[in-house]
Amino acid sequence: MKILIRGANVLLFENEEAVIKEADIAIQDGRIKSVGSASADFSPEKTIDAKGMIAMPGLINTHTHIPMSLLRNYADDMAFWEWLQEKVWPIEAKMNEEDIYWGSMLSISELIMSGTTCFNDMYRFADVVAKSMADTGIRGAVSNTLFDMMRNEDRDFERAIEIHRQWHGASNGRISTFISPHAPYTCSDDYLKGAAETAKRLGVPLHTHISESTREVEESIRDFGKSPVQRLYDIGLFDVHTMAAHCVHLSDDDMEMMSEKGVSVLNNPTSNLKLGNGFAPISRLMEKGVNVSLGTDGACSNNNQDMFEEINLAALINKGVTGDPLAVPSKTAVKMATINGAKAMGLEKSIGSIEEGKKADIILIDTEEPHFYPKYNLISSLSYCAKASDVDTVIVDGKILMEKRVLTTIDIEMVKSKVNDSVKRLMSSI
Amino acid sequence: MKILIRGANVLLFENEEAVIKEADIAIQDGRIKSVGSASADFSPEKTIDAKGMIAMPGLINTHTHIPMSLLRNYADDMAFWEWLQEKVWPIEAKMNEEDIYWGSMLSISELIMSGTTCFNDMYRFADVVAKSMADTGIRGAVSNTLFDMMRNEDRDFERAIEIHRQWHGASNGRISTFISPHAPYTCSDDYLKGAAETAKRLGVPLHTHISESTREVEESIRDFGKSPVQRLYDIGLFDVHTMAAHCVHLSDDDMEMMSEKGVSVLNNPTSNLKLGNGFAPISRLMEKGVNVSLGTDGACSNNNQDMFEEINLAALINKGVTGDPLAVPSKTAVKMATINGAKAMGLEKSIGSIEEGKKADIILIDTEEPHFYPKYNLISSLSYCAKASDVDTVIVDGKILMEKRVLTTIDIEMVKSKVNDSVKRLMSSI
Ligand SMILES: [Zn+2]
Ligand SMILES: [Zn+2]
Repeated sequence: MKILIRGANVLLFENEEAVIKEADIAIQDGRIKSVGSASADFSPEKTIDAKGMIAMPGLINTHTHIPMSLLRNYADDMAFWEWLQEKVWPIEAKMNEEDIYWGSMLSISELIMSGTTCFNDMYRFADVVAKSMADTGIRGAVSNTLFDMMRNEDRDFERAIEIHRQWHGASNGRISTFISPHAPYTCSDDYLKGAAETAKRLGVPLHTHISESTREVEESIRDFGKSPVQRLYDIGLFDVHTMAAHCVHLSDDDMEMMSEKGVSVLNNPTSNLKLGNGFAPISRLMEKGVNVSLGTDGACSNNNQDMFEEINLAALINKGVTGDPLAVPSKTAVKMATINGAKAMGLEKSIGSIEEGKKADIILIDTEEPHFYPKYNLISSLSYCAKASDVDTVIVDGKILMEKRVLTTIDIEMVKSKVNDSVKRLMSSI
Repeated sequence: MKILIRGANVLLFENEEAVIKEADIAIQDGRIKSVGSASADFSPEKTIDAKGMIAMPGLINTHTHIPMSLLRNYADDMAFWEWLQEKVWPIEAKMNEEDIYWGSMLSISELIMSGTTCFNDMYRFADVVAKSMADTGIRGAVSNTLFDMMRNEDRDFERAIEIHRQWHGASNGRISTFISPHAPYTCSDDYLKGAAETAKRLGVPLHTHISESTREVEESIRDFGKSPVQRLYDIGLFDVHTMAAHCVHLSDDDMEMMSEKGVSVLNNPTSNLKLGNGFAPISRLMEKGVNVSLGTDGACSNNNQDMFEEINLAALINKGVTGDPLAVPSKTAVKMATINGAKAMGLEKSIGSIEEGKKADIILIDTEEPHFYPKYNLISSLSYCAKASDVDTVIVDGKILMEKRVLTTIDIEMVKSKVNDSVKRLMSSI
C-alpha cells in the first residue's frame, strides 16, 4: 500500500544529531520512498494528516521475554532468587504452546499500543513467538533460551537451527532468529562455545544476559577466577556480534573488552531497579564507545512493555547516578530506543531511523494532550513528557498496525479472554 | 449531587494495609456517605458503573509550582544553577497575572487528567493560583514563595496574610493557604523565624525546600557551621507543622530531628534525578517513622505533573538504591501518593482515603488496556502498570471534574491557546 504521511514533525538523525523537521513521508512497498515533499506523481492510497504530530522511527525493545506477560503482577516485591526459583520457574515449566502464543499476543498488543515496532525476544517455544509475530505484523527476533547447567532438556542447538531454518527471514524479512544462551552463570564454557559457533554458522547475533547482579559477578570470580565479561571474552564469545542484556556490574576492564569487541549493551532500567540490581554504568559505557540500547525485560520484572517509560528512565536515572544533569540528554535517550536498538540487532541498514530506502517502521505521536504544552522543544518532550497513550498510529513494514489507537491486526478482546483461560489453567496446575 | 459508584474494586487502607474490595461508594453533599452496599433509600442522581475499575483516593501532589508549566521543555539538559539563574529566573521575572493564571490552568488540566485531586503549590501570585483552583474545582494549598536574600520585593508576610484572609477555606474548604519560605539558602535566620511565626499565627503548615543539592548542604556547613536541617531545627522552624520538599542529602542526625519534630518529607523523585541531585533516603526516613509523600515539583524540572510516574519511580528507585527488592513495595508507594500526602498537608481527617465521612475525592482507573492483564494483583498494577491515561473519572469534593477522560470544568482548547499567547509574549520580552 502507498501511504502518505502529511505535514508531520519528523524526528531525523542528521550527523548523529537528533533534529525535528516538518516533512511529508511517502511509503511504498513497505519502504520509505521519500522524506520531504512527496513527488507530484506519488499517488497514495491512504493519506494521514499528521499536522502537529511527531513522526519518529518505531521504538525498538532490544531485550524482552514477551510470553512472560502471562506472569505480570503475579509475584512482585520479592527477593530475586526467591522470585525466580519459587515463583517464576515452577509456573513457566507448566506453560504449553497455547499459553505462549496468547502471552505473546498480549505483549505484542501492548508493544504496538506503546509505539514499539521491533523487539528482541528470548524465551521457550521461540517458534510459537515467531508465529505470533507473523500473525500480528510486528518486527523482531526470536530465540529459545538455551541453558545447560540447570535444564538439560533445553540444551538443543539443533532445535535452534531448526527454528532458524523455519523462521529466519520469514514474513517479508520481519522475523529474525538469534541464538540466546541464557547467561554465563547457567551455561558451561563448552556450551557457550557451542552457542557462539552456532550463531557464527547461521550468521546471526548472539543474545545473552551478563552481570545482572552482584551475586553473579561474585560467584563468577569465585568459580572461574574472573568476571563474567572476562570469561566470555576469553571463550571467544564476543567474536560473534553479541547483544548483552543488563551489564549492571562492570569493571573498567569489562567495559574496555566490550568496547573492543563491539558488544552492544541492552539496558533495562526498570528491571534493574525493580529487582534491586542497581544502575548500569551507561554514561561510562557510552564514553567508551559502546552502543547502548534499551529494553523492558519481561513483564514479570517490569511490569509492562512500555518503552516510553524506559526512555524516560534512561534520561533521568543516569543524571541522578552521575550527579550530572547533562548525562544522557533527551536526544540520546531517544536514540537509545531507536537507532541504537537497530545497531544492537544488526538491523541498522533497514530500520531505526526515518530515511529514504529504509523499511517503513514509523510511529505518530499525538501532541495535543496538555502535558505537551507549550511546545518549546519536541525532542525534549519525547523523553520527559510523552506517554505510551500518546502514540496515535503505528506502521511496520509499511502496514498500519494501529490507527487512532485501534489495533488493526489483533482482536484484543479475544486476546484478553484467551490469556484469562491460560492463567486459570496454569494457576490450577501448580 | 448524589452519586453512586457501583461495583468498583475499591482501594482501602485497613490497619495500615492497602487492600482491594469490591464495593459501591455513595457520595452525598461532597462527602463519602457509605462504602459497601448503598442503603436502599439512597437515590443517586447519577450512577457510575465502575465494574472492573479501580476506585482509589485521588492522588495528592504535595510539592509543585504549577504556573511553571509555562516553562515546560523550555530549558532541559542543563546544569542546575545555570538552569535556575540564566533560564528560569529571568523569564519568571517577566510573568504577569495573566500568564500565571493560564499556566495554572494548564497544570490543573494535566493534574486532573492524570488523577490528581489535590496539590500543594508554592509560587508567585498565589492569589491567582487560588483563583484557578476556585474556577476548576480542584483541591489544594497555595502560597507565595517567600525570599529575603535574593529578591527583597518578595519579603512580604503581610501579603501572605492578606492572601490567607482572602482564600483560606474558600470554595467550600477546597482551598488552603500555607506559608512557604523558599529554602534555608535563600532566607536569613530572622526571616525564617518570621515565616514560622506567621504560620503559627495563622494556624497553617509551613512549606519549604530543604537539602536539595550537595552544594546547598556544603554551603550551609561553611556559612552556618551546620546542616540546613540542624539550622532550621535550632531556629525552631520545625515547631510549626513543616512540609520539607526534596531532603535528598540528609545525615542520620538530620533524619532523627525530622522524625522527632514530625516533619513530613515531600519526595520528588523525577526532579531529583533530572537535576542530577540524586536519591533521597526514603527507606531510611520511613524506618525512622518520618511521613513521606510524593510530589512532581514544577513542570520545568520534571517535565510533567504526572503522579503515576512518581508512584512508579518511588516503587522502583528505592529498590535500586538500597539493593533491596522489598524496599517501598507497591502498597507503600500508593500510600505515599494518597494518605501520606494528606498527612503531610494536615488534611488526613478529610482526604487521602476512601472512608465514610471523608470528602469525596475519588478517581476511577480503567483496567481494560492490555498492560493490566492478567489481573493477579491490582495493587501491584497501580504502581507498576497504571498510567495517567488509565484514569477514567475524577471526582473532587463530590463533583465530577473529568468523566470518560473529558474535562467538565475546563475548556482545554482555550487553555492551550491562552498558554501559547503567554509564551509568545514572554519569549519576545527576554
Ligand atoms: Zn532478561
Ligand atoms: Zn520545588
